Amino acid sequence: MSANQPTDLLGEIYAQWTVEFQANPEMSLQLMRWVFEDWQRATAEPEEVSYRSTSIGGVPGLEVLPAGADASRILLFLHGGGFALGSSASHRKMAGHVAKACGANGFVLDFRLAPEHPYPAQLDDTTAVIDALLESGRSASDIVLVGDSAGASIAVATVLRMRDAGRELPRAVITVSPWVDMENSGVTIETNDDTDFLIAREGLQGNIDRYLSGGASPTDPLVNPLYADFTGFPPLYIDASESESLFHDAQRLAEVARAAGVDVTFHAASGMQHVYPLQAGNLPAADESIAAIADWYRAH
Amino acid sequence: MSANQPTDLLGEIYAQWTVEFQANPEMSLQLMRWVFEDWQRATAEPEEVSYRSTSIGGVPGLEVLPAGADASRILLFLHGGGFALGSSASHRKMAGHVAKACGANGFVLDFRLAPEHPYPAQLDDTTAVIDALLESGRSASDIVLVGDSAGASIAVATVLRMRDAGRELPRAVITVSPWVDMENSGVTIETNDDTDFLIAREGLQGNIDRYLSGGASPTDPLVNPLYADFTGFPPLYIDASESESLFHDAQRLAEVARAAGVDVTFHAASGMQHVYPLQAGNLPAADESIAAIADWYRAH
Repeated sequence: MSANQPTDLLGEIYAQWTVEFQANPEMSLQLMRWVFEDWQRATAEPEEVSYRSTSIGGVPGLEVLPAGADASRILLFLHGGGFALGSSASHRKMAGHVAKACGANGFVLDFRLAPEHPYPAQLDDTTAVIDALLESGRSASDIVLVGDSAGASIAVATVLRMRDAGRELPRAVITVSPWVDMENSGVTIETNDDTDFLIAREGLQGNIDRYLSGGASPTDPLVNPLYADFTGFPPLYIDASESESLFHDAQRLAEVARAAGVDVTFHAASGMQHVYPLQAGNLPAADESIAAIADWYRAH
Repeated sequence: MSANQPTDLLGEIYAQWTVEFQANPEMSLQLMRWVFEDWQRATAEPEEVSYRSTSIGGVPGLEVLPAGADASRILLFLHGGGFALGSSASHRKMAGHVAKACGANGFVLDFRLAPEHPYPAQLDDTTAVIDALLESGRSASDIVLVGDSAGASIAVATVLRMRDAGRELPRAVITVSPWVDMENSGVTIETNDDTDFLIAREGLQGNIDRYLSGGASPTDPLVNPLYADFTGFPPLYIDASESESLFHDAQRLAEVARAAGVDVTFHAASGMQHVYPLQAGNLPAADESIAAIADWYRAH
């Protein structure tokens, strides 16, 4: 628990979660999943966006359809929640804000969750969606992946695996508060403990254990992109706050990608919580973050 | 816990909740609120509906805006959850299906919850919304209240209180799985225990205690409409399933209203769970229920 007091809605939400987690140290995974659905509360409804429950390539999820969007362009949203939590419902509204700002349609994947489905189920599901979109006549350059927290790992690793297979790649990858270090070694986990009201090393380790329960190594480049060679990777956008526990993950992701010559844009906020753009419509910094993402999207 | 097995998504959801409630008999109200938000999972997204986070008359909530709806007509949704649980988020999609079928706009109230705000805060909030709509130029006949479970009690009692005050009344009241008996005496609570996967007498009593924590009597006609005189009440629609624990509440509500000459339409389903129209888009019986509501709405 932080010594600080939350100053925004997401901080309040994380502080409420933390109270319950601490009061229920043996909380079931099912209850934790219901708690994390509360993420949706941080976001105001994006106006003039409608939705469709559907599946693409056998993967269930939510189509996000802003009025007047260019339907030929699609954003694939990989939600956060440590590979084990979160859903299209927790991220629907944030995806709506991002898709609307970008002028594109979206699809929020309900990829299979760990530990019932450990790595690489999440990459397989994302690839299945991309394959289905290509089979339906879209080109890879119509597709951009957007991942927050663990969803950033899924987005990055899926593209790295496609690159390894010599496939045509999505146009770009956008990450928000990326979580990529499965060795759980980030220094900001401690140094930002007072200002990050959600993330703690034990919670991260629980999600790592669930994700790797199929036997993958925490240094496998597709599990931990900090060990990957990013040669040939498409333009990469990274948004994170200097005050969050996983800021070191964002910094190191930028470093390894830039070392391989990737076009990396790093948008650093200050004083914000993990995945602060979830506060779209409720917090100017969140709206500014999404406007910057949209500017970058339209330029790429 | 029921001896039967769930045969539909809502039954599965209620059975999952029950597992966690039984494993955590001292579950905090905050955790219970997060569990009940899971109601949203039962409903498929209604297509071509958009939303707006706003407030009306100082009451926060969610505008539900089906494409092509008659904006002059508005449905006010009072969500279920025992006056203490549930939200505009848990009921957004069901409200979207109902509003779309009716061809009207909707507003899902985030009325204040018990026990922080016991009776009559919920009636006060609903009245504040109606007052603001009238002040903005709508007439009472443009307004229809829709309440499920405890929300039906709020809807009915708000209109009874307006009737007592000699005010012009909303055009109609639509109830789904109404819960009105604050004496907790319904016989179907026991006789349908095997087929209702959510409702049990102890859970009801907990919500009664929270709602009446301000000191109201469980036989006050505005707390318990089974004690009310319904003379002058507008047309009333009641939808419930014969297999649910609160079916006796629905039956008795119909009886007392009919005894006062109210135009009552009773739609009885069979084999369904509490508030089964939450499965709109996922279960034909739910879609048929909403189509019947819309037919009745358009005829009144």
